Amino acid sequence: MSLSNILKFFQPKDKIFYTLFEQVTETLTEMGTIFHQALHETDFAKREELLKKLEDLEHKNDETTHTIFIELGRNFITPFDREDIHYLATSLDDIADYIWGAAKRIVNYNMVDIDESTKGFSVIIKKSITELHKCIGELRGMKKIRSITESCIKINSYENEGDDLLDSSMVQLFNAEKDPIVVIKKKDLYQMLEIVTDKCEDAANVIESIIVKYA
Amino acid sequence: MSLSNILKFFQPKDKIFYTLFEQVTETLTEMGTIFHQALHETDFAKREELLKKLEDLEHKNDETTHTIFIELGRNFITPFDREDIHYLATSLDDIADYIWGAAKRIVNYNMVDIDESTKGFSVIIKKSITELHKCIGELRGMKKIRSITESCIKINSYENEGDDLLDSSMVQLFNAEKDPIVVIKKKDLYQMLEIVTDKCEDAANVIESIIVKYA
Amino acid sequence: MSLSNILKFFQPKDKIFYTLFEQVTETLTEMGTIFHQALHETDFAKREELLKKLEDLEHKNDETTHTIFIELGRNFITPFDREDIHYLATSLDDIADYIWGAAKRIVNYNMVDIDESTKGFSVIIKKSITELHKCIGELRGMKKIRSITESCIKINSYENEGDDLLDSSMVQLFNAEKDPIVVIKKKDLYQMLEIVTDKCEDAANVIESIIVKYA
Repeated sequence: MSLSNILKFFQPKDKIFYTLFEQVTETLTEMGTIFHQALHETDFAKREELLKKLEDLEHKNDETTHTIFIELGRNFITPFDREDIHYLATSLDDIADYIWGAAKRIVNYNMVDIDESTKGFSVIIKKSITELHKCIGELRGMKKIRSITESCIKINSYENEGDDLLDSSMVQLFNAEKDPIVVIKKKDLYQMLEIVTDKCEDAANVIESIIVKYA
Repeated sequence: MSLSNILKFFQPKDKIFYTLFEQVTETLTEMGTIFHQALHETDFAKREELLKKLEDLEHKNDETTHTIFIELGRNFITPFDREDIHYLATSLDDIADYIWGAAKRIVNYNMVDIDESTKGFSVIIKKSITELHKCIGELRGMKKIRSITESCIKINSYENEGDDLLDSSMVQLFNAEKDPIVVIKKKDLYQMLEIVTDKCEDAANVIESIIVKYA
Repeated sequence: MSLSNILKFFQPKDKIFYTLFEQVTETLTEMGTIFHQALHETDFAKREELLKKLEDLEHKNDETTHTIFIELGRNFITPFDREDIHYLATSLDDIADYIWGAAKRIVNYNMVDIDESTKGFSVIIKKSITELHKCIGELRGMKKIRSITESCIKINSYENEGDDLLDSSMVQLFNAEKDPIVVIKKKDLYQMLEIVTDKCEDAANVIESIIVKYA
């Protein structure tokens, strides 16, 4: 066994997962903030610019997620169950994918006026991500179990808000909008935004199951 | 402490999973029956009332599924592989979600006339759930392996029926319907209903893989 | 008979997984080739005939995938992690499902003119599957790690190509197409084709995580 291998052997390799998950929710926080800001920006050119920033962040997050999977393959010891790490990384990555997916639709579909439903989703998404970022930061040490649980409950209620917003937006869309092309575009966007809140709930559910096991 | 609580106390902890899965398919059976009944109800107000009942059942099922995941975290010993419990709970939960999703669309899209395709899906869904409920009841004890296998084969053939119904419904929709808004609504509903039959098949596949391991 | 041949003769049961995965990517290769050929076939009747051939191949692949799951239940020893076998089989099966799903749409929606976007997707899909087939063939023995990694990198870049093609196709569709029914059909088809490239990437990611563990 070489010296470097011996050193590697003594390094707390499993701690890397906390750092990587923190990096993920940091990037997500930035994405949630920029997305929210973009949808409330009235200047069209500035909005497009903000939305396009999300692509780099999504790529950055892809790379961190990729590193998590590589480390999962390399590390025999993990701070919590391997399958939980896998599910958590996947749901968090999905959040980034769907935010960027929604942003792309706004750009590609040339949606000039951002309606109240879309803005409403950006508010729900932003606060869900804020809670997720808090949770992940508190996983290290497993000390603030109560606080983590409260965040998870909040994220679940935000997902319900997202569900209700999708329902009311759809009812309104089919009642008020007569142009089928606009219906196609908005329906697609709303559904994508609602999936973001679903994926936040998925991540919260994994976090909850992790703390149940280790509390 | 009541007698039932004492009995619960002495129940081997891993047996809870059978009870929980039975609760899930009981709720699904109720959902399948109500959904089928609603779609065959000609009185519009009564139909809406029936469809809205599905929301409570979907919430009830969410809670049971949540309990399964919590128990999975708490219990070191499980009656079958942890990953199988996870997949099974997820697919069964998806069935409830997509039935309620379809019901919501019928309400939100204000679909007054229920066509033959939609009714046909409700028949396939109802019989798939009936077989799933039977399977789950027979998992306890693993005695009626042959009967479980037969149910799984039936569920697979119902999924094929669902596929064919989706195909023929789509061909007819694009041939006959000229209003694009109606096309959007019906296409969305049919696809959601076909996913219900997919999720029933997913659940049946997990059950099959469980009995292969334990038979 | 040499010692290595004797050893080969007594091939352990877990080697079946290599053979089964090779069968899967062989079927996928055939599907990718026929799909590509069909979309470049100008004779409508011949094209329909080719597209319909995909159904049998999809069924054949379903059966092989089913066998993989059955063997996974039966075999205590597997050549790589059980969850990796599960994910890999699922992603490869999804590729077949979505190719056949796309083919069915072309037939059911009665899409007579195959546009450049659709043809472009068939090219990306074909080359992604070619790399997947190569990878799977090299898993046995784990000797050509470098070559497997290179294929995985290529598949990832093809998925990016698919993403870009979806974006440009959508922009063009909403700019140029005024018939909402055509928009509905083409949007659905493009999205389905892009999912095929996603599923190829999913499979490549599992393969990459397998070689990280065993290299």
